[in-house]
Amino acid sequence: MDFNAVAKEFVQYYYGVFERNRAELASLYRDPSMLTFEGNQFQGAGPIVQKLTTLPFQTVAHKITTLDAQPGPANALLVVVTGELLIDQETNPTRFTQVFQLISEGNTYWVFNDVFRLNYG
Amino acid sequence: MDFNAVAKEFVQYYYGVFERNRAELASLYRDPSMLTFEGNQFQGAGPIVQKLTTLPFQTVAHKITTLDAQPGPANALLVVVTGELLIDQETNPTRFTQVFQLISEGNTYWVFNDVFRLNYG
Repeated sequence: MDFNAVAKEFVQYYYGVFERNRAELASLYRDPSMLTFEGNQFQGAGPIVQKLTTLPFQTVAHKITTLDAQPGPANALLVVVTGELLIDQETNPTRFTQVFQLISEGNTYWVFNDVFRLNYG
Repeated sequence: MDFNAVAKEFVQYYYGVFERNRAELASLYRDPSMLTFEGNQFQGAGPIVQKLTTLPFQTVAHKITTLDAQPGPANALLVVVTGELLIDQETNPTRFTQVFQLISEGNTYWVFNDVFRLNYG
C-alpha cells in the first residue's frame, strides 16, 4: 500500500463529496466513528452526518495546503491536512486543520477518527 | 482513563522537555516511532531525536491554542494540537499544527505517530 497515495485519494474524495452533498459522507462513517468539531464531540455515522449537514453555510470550498500521512496502529492510516476554507460569498479564506484516521476494510476505508479545527488569526 | 486529561498532561510534559532539553525526548520514542517534520520523514528514536536536537534555533516557546484528543485504534490515543511558536528573539509567533498518536505501555505512553507542520501566513 502506498499510504501517501491512499491519503491523497481519500482527502480529494472526502472534500469533493463534502462540497457537493454532505449527506453522502454517511457512507464513510460507522458506529464507532468519532468526530471532534471545534471541540464538540460526536459519535456514530448518524450524529456525525447530522452535524456536518447542519453546518450554517450553503457552499464551501477546501484548498489543501499540506497533506501528511503515516501508518497508524493496527493497520490504520493517519492523515493530517492543513488548508483554507472559502465559505459562501466570503473572499477571505479561513485556515483549518483536519486529522483523519482511516480503517481499511477490504478495498475501502472508513473514518475512525476525525478532528476538525478552524485556525483563526 | 480520562483521555483528555492524559492528552493535556502529555503535551505539557512534551513541550516542557522540548523547551528545556530536546535530547531528553528520546525516552518518548521507540524503534517503530515515526516523525513527519515539515514533510520530511524520520523513523526510530535515534533519527527522530537527531532531527529535533539539530533544529536551527536555541530557544523556543510553545503556546497551545487548541488541544483535542480521541481514543485511537488498538487503545492508542490521538492528540491534535494547534498553537503558536516563538523562536529565539522573534516577537511574531508562527502557528503550528502537531499531531501525536500515543501507545500505552504500563503506566506510561510512547509516541507512535508524530506529524509537525508550520502554518505560514
